[in-house]
This record gives sequence, structure tokens and C-alpha cells, in this order.
Amino acid sequence: MAEQKKLVEEITSMDVDFAQWYTDIVKKAELIDYASVKGCMVIKPAGYALWENIQKALDAKFKETGVENVYMPMFIPESLLQKEKDHVEGFAPEVAWVTYGGLEPLQERLCVRPTSETLFCDFYKDAIQSYRDLPKLYNQWCSVVRWEKTTRPFLRSREFLWQEGHTAHATAEDAEARTIQMLNVYADFCEQVLAIPVIKGRKTDKEKFAGAEATYTIEALMHDGKALQSGTSHNFGDGFARAFGIQYTDKENKLQYVHQTSWGMSTRIIGGIIMVHGDDSGLVLPPRIAPTQVMVIPIQQRKEGVLEKATELKSELLEKGFRVKLDDSDKSPGFKFADQEMRGIPLRVEIGPKDMEAGRCIVVRRDTREKVEVALSDLAAKVGELLEQMQKDMLERARNHVKNHTYEAKNYEEFCDTINNKPGFVKAMWCGELACEEKIKEDTTATSRCMPFEQEQISDVCVCCGKPAKKMVYWGKAY
Amino acid sequence: MAEQKKLVEEITSMDVDFAQWYTDIVKKAELIDYASVKGCMVIKPAGYALWENIQKALDAKFKETGVENVYMPMFIPESLLQKEKDHVEGFAPEVAWVTYGGLEPLQERLCVRPTSETLFCDFYKDAIQSYRDLPKLYNQWCSVVRWEKTTRPFLRSREFLWQEGHTAHATAEDAEARTIQMLNVYADFCEQVLAIPVIKGRKTDKEKFAGAEATYTIEALMHDGKALQSGTSHNFGDGFARAFGIQYTDKENKLQYVHQTSWGMSTRIIGGIIMVHGDDSGLVLPPRIAPTQVMVIPIQQRKEGVLEKATELKSELLEKGFRVKLDDSDKSPGFKFADQEMRGIPLRVEIGPKDMEAGRCIVVRRDTREKVEVALSDLAAKVGELLEQMQKDMLERARNHVKNHTYEAKNYEEFCDTINNKPGFVKAMWCGELACEEKIKEDTTATSRCMPFEQEQISDVCVCCGKPAKKMVYWGKAY
Repeated sequence: MAEQKKLVEEITSMDVDFAQWYTDIVKKAELIDYASVKGCMVIKPAGYALWENIQKALDAKFKETGVENVYMPMFIPESLLQKEKDHVEGFAPEVAWVTYGGLEPLQERLCVRPTSETLFCDFYKDAIQSYRDLPKLYNQWCSVVRWEKTTRPFLRSREFLWQEGHTAHATAEDAEARTIQMLNVYADFCEQVLAIPVIKGRKTDKEKFAGAEATYTIEALMHDGKALQSGTSHNFGDGFARAFGIQYTDKENKLQYVHQTSWGMSTRIIGGIIMVHGDDSGLVLPPRIAPTQVMVIPIQQRKEGVLEKATELKSELLEKGFRVKLDDSDKSPGFKFADQEMRGIPLRVEIGPKDMEAGRCIVVRRDTREKVEVALSDLAAKVGELLEQMQKDMLERARNHVKNHTYEAKNYEEFCDTINNKPGFVKAMWCGELACEEKIKEDTTATSRCMPFEQEQISDVCVCCGKPAKKMVYWGKAY
Repeated sequence: MAEQKKLVEEITSMDVDFAQWYTDIVKKAELIDYASVKGCMVIKPAGYALWENIQKALDAKFKETGVENVYMPMFIPESLLQKEKDHVEGFAPEVAWVTYGGLEPLQERLCVRPTSETLFCDFYKDAIQSYRDLPKLYNQWCSVVRWEKTTRPFLRSREFLWQEGHTAHATAEDAEARTIQMLNVYADFCEQVLAIPVIKGRKTDKEKFAGAEATYTIEALMHDGKALQSGTSHNFGDGFARAFGIQYTDKENKLQYVHQTSWGMSTRIIGGIIMVHGDDSGLVLPPRIAPTQVMVIPIQQRKEGVLEKATELKSELLEKGFRVKLDDSDKSPGFKFADQEMRGIPLRVEIGPKDMEAGRCIVVRRDTREKVEVALSDLAAKVGELLEQMQKDMLERARNHVKNHTYEAKNYEEFCDTINNKPGFVKAMWCGELACEEKIKEDTTATSRCMPFEQEQISDVCVCCGKPAKKMVYWGKAY
């Protein structure tokens, strides 16, 4: 076990230095590697397999709601980016510009898409003519570029992978309904598949997307008490439609502007999985998203029949539809245990000569480290049961974490004291003024995370200025 | 039927103007739209769904051979691109350069990847240390950019989607075996899934990939007798390894260079599907790749029970695992037939009041337009049978087209005469000298497509210079 201990010691404890713990995990669980381009990352097989599973699950949910996939160009001419005033102000400072094509300078600079509203609008303005062409429910899976100054793997990188849905509707009501529908798709996905509970709500005007009428968000709480904006859904009203001239003739033959939405989730959510579920031994993956759900580890694998039995168990579990691997490398069992734990594989199955004799194996849960002896004849059933239970327990544990780290504040002293000393969300009332948001940010570095759909009346007045309150807000320090 | 005729007449006949026919189809089957960035395309739902099916089928085949997916950054620092001399010479003239990040000029220009050998090499040089780290079998699905002067949808665009596999091996033999293995994956995929027969062979040095020791290719013949390079697989030997310093310690503890391969297939193949199978009524999609395999079209759909019956047939076929849609729009049956034909949907099922009375429906094959009356109780079985038969027939028909458009030439007069007057492949002997390839290209615009694995002895001397021949080559005019 000395070897296992040593391997585990290589990760910084999350209580000692959470940021370093995070960096250690992304490297040692082999999710990413740094690339020669500053702020960009190489997503390695273990990281990309996670993203593939996220894509598969989300894409199926999108398609169930009638969404179709498309692909827009990665370049946006500068003049196109400039068509919507708020949008260009929000994005122009952080885009990468292409100025040469081959050996020749371009007549007009092209930016590498930071997001594709302008491209979809440019397309929709010709593709939409009549009410019969509506709604348009398009989505694309692609990479986008934002020239960030400070970068962290998954959480903030100059290039990241995501999906961006862009829809156009006949009425304001349809657009609003779609915006909320997709927010709910994200929320359900996070809770049911990733075991990450989220707060659903609306962003304040200060925090909303450049060009949006309303931005809705799901906010998750990380293990260190910081918030992670995990998915957003925007209602653009007819703002982009007016800027780009996207009009349709309605049933009465009158020209109308369309109403639009966009919504996105990115590889950032992988950072969320790490920071919600990980522990000091490494990653802990929710069974429903884990690329490998079970690692079979033979004990004394050179003893007669052990490797054969381990292979047999693997095949049996594979046949039952589980995602299973066998670690038959020449490393010690202790090393293999530590490795499986580091990679966050939900279950390990240990099988050695003594187990074989007794007709059983040992199954160990990654999250609780609970060990169970399982009769070989019951293995598949028990594995299914344990994975189910683990998925449920992980969500429950994460829910408790949010509950135990969500505070209320009735006055500013209490607010500042809590937000500075107790990592987590603080629920407090707000007058609706930008000035108070700015003061709070300056005094505490905290930001309004969202105005939750589930409003509560903590008090009657704004926690900052004391004027009559309009909304209850979740505040927090954020990634 | 007047309406149907009119719709069909909107496509240029392929015999009148093949290029225009092609453009008409990509637009009218709604595969793509042009974007505001010159040479880039918007891939619309019908086009992207095809690509998704291609991805799904190929990706599964890759994974069966042990390949893992990863994601590399889209930017390559100029200094990195320059590390392999032949490679940079081949690509530098046609890359897009990013020179600004936000408001500030970059210290070093970054090119948008035209292909990612340099990025994989930069990664492998640290990731590979020991023989235990080999082989590395990585692939990525992404978009790449090449600043082409003349562009055509799918065939040649400034940005296109593809997969690029990049592997590293301990020995030259392993690398060569993988190169051929992946070429075979492509060839089997084209023939079995896309019903496109291909010639497998090796490129001449003139036509090989920049930096490769050997390039293997699959070449398909389009309806107009032009060749389409449909997938390539490169063996780099240890050239990139030496340029980038990718070394491993072998079992005898000696430092060795790795041997590498790369292989790719792109959205270009969609152009191949169009040009091999399409006809004057539009697209014809092989059943195995068609996003929609069956379109159910109700006749006199306002008559009682018709729409219900049509919906029932759709549900029944969906349940059996077919990809089915129902056209219940308020357009005429004639319009719907023409639309289904334009989109290349393999089968249509017509169901009207008279059919219902007789307990049957009409099934029409897209490729032959053969109509069959099918008892409603036999529908699912018959649909399965017809799709199978159509897939088989399409490959057979394409094979005959290649056979009927492949010629032999023993001397230069015959060669020029054939290549200029008979669209297709010309098989002819070659001395191995660049000068002859260049002369042939200058005289006829034809290029050597490949030196096929299945060599034949057409004559003893080079068709161009008359010197002793080394290889039989497929020559052709190409996209």
C-alpha cells in the first residue's frame, strides 16, 4: 500500500490549495495537457471521452425537442460582427483576428467566432421569408475562441468546445418558451446525468449576454464554495432581427420581425464535474457519464486462472451493457487501485485466487470506498444496483453541499461577513440598481449569480442600499 | 404532375452542364448554403445529418481498431509549422493567419490548422517516452482551413470538416501496417456504406502529402468521368519524429525515433455521394447513409382516415428501426414526390383511400423508380428488403460505371486521345519519372491518380517517354 499512498500523495489536498488540487487532477487523471499555444489545451482521450458522452446525452435531448444540427463557418467578417451594437462591444475586445489568407492580406479582417449569433442572423435573413419557415431550431457543435488573459483548463481557455443553439420564432411568447425550455434541458441534464444540482434563474442586466434581452442561467456550487455558471439560455427578443433585417410575412400577409434565442453549454462543465465530485484521491465520475464505469483488477494475476476469471467477469459485464475495462498491466494491485481512483472510475472489481475459491469478488465504490463481497453469480445485478445507488448518492451529497453552503443576509454587514468568511451562496434582497451590484463587487468581489425562479422574501429592503427591494438574488464568488 | 415536372425542371440536366447540375443539387436538396465569407459554406440540416451518419459509421470503425479521440488546438504557432521543411512548404502558402488577439498584435503569428501533424508531433514529443507508451492511436473530428482560390461546395472550400488520425509506432513495419489498415477502413466504408467503389493505391512522389514518405489513396470515379480523391492515408516514416525529436527508449534501453502515420476523410466525400449516385431529379442516397430512408406520402390526405393510416405506417416502420418521415404538409402529392426525389430519400410509401380499401400501399424506389404494390401487413419486411436491394444495386451500378469508363493506353497518341475524349480512368504504364507526369499534365490536364495495389502489365514501356516502365498508373482528370 506504500506505493498507492505515494501516488495519492502526488495530488495536493483540496483543503490545502484547491486551485492546485484542480490542476493536479486535470493533469494526473489525464484529461488535458497544455499546448504550445498559450491558453489552449490538448483534450486527451479520458477528457474527450467525457465530452463525447456529454455530447451524446445532450444532443439526444435537443433532438427530442425538434432541434436540428448544422454547421456555420468559423470566420465572421468584421462588418458582420459590428451589426448589433451591444454584441460587438461585448465581444470585439476578446476575439482573434485573421488578417492574412496565404501570402496576401485580407481586404476585410475576419474574426474567429467567439459565438455565432451574427452568422446565424446573416443566414436567417435569407432563409426565413414566411411564417411557414418558422420556427427554425438549429444547433451546432464546434469550437469557439475568446482571447482571455488568464486561463485555466476547462474553466477559461482561449479555445473551447461547446454547442450553441440558435432559434427563430414567430412570436415573443414562442421565443421565451424556447429559452426556458432549453434552460430546463440543461438543468435536468446536470442533475440527472452529471449529479450536479443547479439554481435556475435570470441574470441581472449587468451580467446578461451582450445583445440579449434576457439571459437565464444555471448556477452550480463547487466544492470550494465558488459558483460556476454552467449553462445559459438567452432571449434576444427582436433586437438581432432588427439589426439584421430578419423578417417574415405572417398569415395576414404583414411583415414581422422574428424573435430569437440562443443557448450554450461547453467543456467548462467538465470543470464543474471535477470540482463538485472530486476528492483528494482524484476524480469521481457520476456513473451515467463515466466513459469507464467498472475497472476489473486481478489480484495475484500470475496465479493460475486469475487473469482468465478477470477477463470472464469483464466480458460478462460488457455483455450486460456496462462500460468496463480490465487492468491487466504488470503493475501492482495497489498502483492499479490508486490509478482507478485517480481516474474516477465509479466501481472496481477485485478478483484474486482466494475470491475465486470462495466464488465471489470484491466490489469497491469510488465515492464512499465501501467494499462489498459479491457472489460471482450476482455480479452483474449488483454492479447495476451499485451504479444506480452511487449516481443517486452523488446527487444527494452535492445537494446537501449546496444546502449547507447557502446563507441568507438581511443587512450589509451580515452580507459582507458571510460572503467573505463562508464560501457559498448568499441569498439577499436587491433594489434592482446597477450601483448596488457594482458596490458589492468592489467591496467583496462577489457578483449576482442570478435572480432565482424560486423567489423568497428575505427582507423588504436591498441588502446594500436599504431602498425597497425588488428581487431576491443569489450572490457568490464565481469562476 | 405538371407541378412535379416544373420542380424537376429547375435542375440543370447533368448531360447539359454537370457543374451546374451539381450546384443545383447542393442548393435544392438543401445540403448547403453560401456564407458571407467567401469560400465558406453553411452546412444545412440535410447536409449535416449526412455528415453525422458518416461520422457515426467511421468513428465506430476507428474505435474497433483501438483508436481514441482527442482534441488539439485549432491554432499552430508559425515556428511550429516550420519545423518540418516539406510540410511547411506544402501548407504555408494556403493558411489563414491570426495576427491579433483582441486589441493587441500577437508576438508570433498563429495559423488556423490546415492539418494537425505539427500539433500532434509537439504533443507526442513529451507524451511518448518509453516503448510502453506505444502505439499512440489518436484521432480528432474538427474543421480545418485552407485558403483556396477557387472553391466549390464540399469539393473544395476554405473551411471543411474532417477527421484526422495521427498515430505513432515503435517500428516502421507497424506504421506501414496501420497506414494500410486505415486505407482499407476507408475503402470498405465507401463501398459498403456509401456504395462508392474505389481504386486503392499509392500516390506518386509528385502527388504525395507534404512531409510524407508514402501516401496511399482511394480514388472514386464520378458520373462525369472525373476522379475524386476520397480519402488518404500517409506513412511518415521517422521524418516528423526527427524534425520534432520524438524518441522513446526501447526494451534494450536504446533511444529510437517513432514512426508515424496520419489519415483523413472529409466532407468532400459528400460531393462524391452526390456525383456518383445523383440523377436529373436530384440526390440519390444509399440507404445505409440516408438520414431519412423512407418518406410516407398520403394521397388525398383530407379524405377520412388517410392521415391516420399514414401516421400509423410511419410509426410501424419507425418501430422496426427504419428512419422514416411523413410529409403531411398541405402541398400536392406531385410536389411531395418531386421533393422526396430531390432529397434522395431511398423509398417513398404512397397511401390513399383506394390503397386503404385494397389493404395495400405503393412503394417506389428512388434509384430505379420501380413501383411495387405491397400488402400493408408486409410493409416493414418489404421495406427492409427493398432498402437492402437498393444498396446492393447502387454499388453494382457504380461498379459498372467504373468498369465502363476505365480504358487502357499503350502509346502516347492513344493515351491523349482517350483521356481527352473519353471521360474516365486511363490505365497506362509509367517510367517513374516526374518529367513524364508533368508532360502529361501539361498536355492533357490529367494527373496520376494512383499506382494501384492491383498492378497489371499493359505494356513494357512508359506511355509517355517509351523508356522501360516501372508501374501501371491510373490517370485521370480530377476534382
